[in-house]
Amino acid sequence: MSKFWSDIVHKLTPYVPGEQPKLANLVKLNTNENPYGPSPKVIEALKAEAADSLRLYPDPNSDALKAAIAHAYHLNPNQVFVGNGSDEVLAHVFQALLKHDKPLLFPDITYSFYPVYCGLYGIEFHTIPLAEDFSINVDDYNRPNGGIIFPNPNAPTGMPLALAQIEKLLQRNPESVVVIDEAYVDFGTESAVGLINQYPNLLVTHTLSKARSLAGLRVGYAMGSPKLIEALIRVKDSFNSYPIDRFASAGAIAAIQDTEYFDKTCKQVVATRNALVNELNKLEFDVLPSGANFIFAKHGAWDGAELAGKLRERGIIVRHFKSPSRIAPYLRITIGTEAQSKVLIDALSEIL
Amino acid sequence: MSKFWSDIVHKLTPYVPGEQPKLANLVKLNTNENPYGPSPKVIEALKAEAADSLRLYPDPNSDALKAAIAHAYHLNPNQVFVGNGSDEVLAHVFQALLKHDKPLLFPDITYSFYPVYCGLYGIEFHTIPLAEDFSINVDDYNRPNGGIIFPNPNAPTGMPLALAQIEKLLQRNPESVVVIDEAYVDFGTESAVGLINQYPNLLVTHTLSKARSLAGLRVGYAMGSPKLIEALIRVKDSFNSYPIDRFASAGAIAAIQDTEYFDKTCKQVVATRNALVNELNKLEFDVLPSGANFIFAKHGAWDGAELAGKLRERGIIVRHFKSPSRIAPYLRITIGTEAQSKVLIDALSEIL
Repeated sequence: MSKFWSDIVHKLTPYVPGEQPKLANLVKLNTNENPYGPSPKVIEALKAEAADSLRLYPDPNSDALKAAIAHAYHLNPNQVFVGNGSDEVLAHVFQALLKHDKPLLFPDITYSFYPVYCGLYGIEFHTIPLAEDFSINVDDYNRPNGGIIFPNPNAPTGMPLALAQIEKLLQRNPESVVVIDEAYVDFGTESAVGLINQYPNLLVTHTLSKARSLAGLRVGYAMGSPKLIEALIRVKDSFNSYPIDRFASAGAIAAIQDTEYFDKTCKQVVATRNALVNELNKLEFDVLPSGANFIFAKHGAWDGAELAGKLRERGIIVRHFKSPSRIAPYLRITIGTEAQSKVLIDALSEIL
Repeated sequence: MSKFWSDIVHKLTPYVPGEQPKLANLVKLNTNENPYGPSPKVIEALKAEAADSLRLYPDPNSDALKAAIAHAYHLNPNQVFVGNGSDEVLAHVFQALLKHDKPLLFPDITYSFYPVYCGLYGIEFHTIPLAEDFSINVDDYNRPNGGIIFPNPNAPTGMPLALAQIEKLLQRNPESVVVIDEAYVDFGTESAVGLINQYPNLLVTHTLSKARSLAGLRVGYAMGSPKLIEALIRVKDSFNSYPIDRFASAGAIAAIQDTEYFDKTCKQVVATRNALVNELNKLEFDVLPSGANFIFAKHGAWDGAELAGKLRERGIIVRHFKSPSRIAPYLRITIGTEAQSKVLIDALSEIL
């Protein structure tokens, strides 16, 4: 506390990201990074940026990157917004589109940054409990609201929601912005991007940190009707003219364009996930259905925190959430390489 | 306008950055970039980051970068905050430290992003006119306030304020945060960093976009007492966990550490500036005293906008501000290379 702080600072409960350990040789399955590096074409594009031109500002509007994204998703560039990671994009979304008189709705178990943004911008919100089986039931969102947001697949459960359900929500809420946070969509979940031209209230957010293997580069984007995008641009241009540096732009363009590498690595992650779920089932884990590059799993005989601790002793880091109590028995495990799956299964076989 | 927008979006008047022309072969003297590229050590460090490790998130706390900055300025790492360009740092400063019941004070002629931040965060402000000679008179700031901010040297005038004046301001305002925005300090203005350990109400902001030749990389930082830094961290961790990507961190560390290259290029810019001012004086320009890598100059016989237009026809871009009317006769001219100075002087000699 300090007399120098603005009032809002006293009230904040900042988000706590997954640990980025400084030790090497860990099997790091805690922050949903891709086990495969970025495309060789991305590396090449990035190397070319390490040049004298760094003395110059980047394009404040990131036109080339927006054009690449628009082309990939069959949209117009004025339907695309880009930011310094999807967390920055989401922050702008909360401030620009989700602060209204009626409360914002999101699931009680979801990305834990959402209530933090609400705190930062003074947004009233109401959480809707997930169903017994951890699924999102869109009928539960039939209430007055100033916006709706959730990830699809949801986090940290990894569970996908069918597109027909999202369309129902869009139809029922023509006066509200519905944000579908598709950070993990490329690992087997249906994207809502195809609905953008039909529903002016739909905003879809993506990140390059997961399926594009670029968590270290910080690029995310939002796609939606030009009016929604305009609100984001207005806030961005009142906050930071140049959020996308020259590396971020060049690397992201190359990553979006190399669809072959993208498809190959996504398929590999999904195959590894399916094989890992089989092995975990054999060890009597209960694993929620996943459309993501992570799984949410519990073992009836073990406490989640205890099991995470035992894995850590063996150099394997997974993520555990203490609250709410419904998810305390679960571990969120990122899908790594096949070799990492084997290390994990061997360790669990020893522990259990 | 749209029913989907949060109220704040309707009210914003976004900042307009200097043009980043997409044409090549322009003499670009409009956005105060360094004419010299970054240090070869920076380029080397950046090339090494184009690697598989980009699949991993960067350190959310940027500890290595904070340590490098702290070491360079004889501070502790808990006196340092880093962000995605000093514009992002300033945005967090406005939200975290400058929103109080009493109005924020800043000069009427200054960095035009300040009132934009006030609009974004609903901060009341009061502008204090510069003196007749465009200098900041700290006696004019003797009034109740919720904070004070200005650049030193000021923008777009380039005029430095003596450290003794800043110290007077700090002593008179022990209950307010005083932010000295030192974006251009390395080109011949005294830094207030040495006062940080004496004044817990002092925050100094820097950028790597100017003297460190890294406008394309987006790194800025703030230095001040741990309590001020803590407020910034709380806001940052409620906004975006990872604002500094792997390139930004590696490049910034190398830039901060290569003091030899930094000193050499800053000295060259100052020498070119002094020579250019001499030439402009010969052409009957009135040039304000500059402690920056740009100058603010007017020619009695010419309108600023008209002269900027004539230069543009010759492929030379400088910056012109239409308002307030006091500065409309002036051009803000970035210091380029000696060759660029010659092109500029030759063009002006032709035009005048």
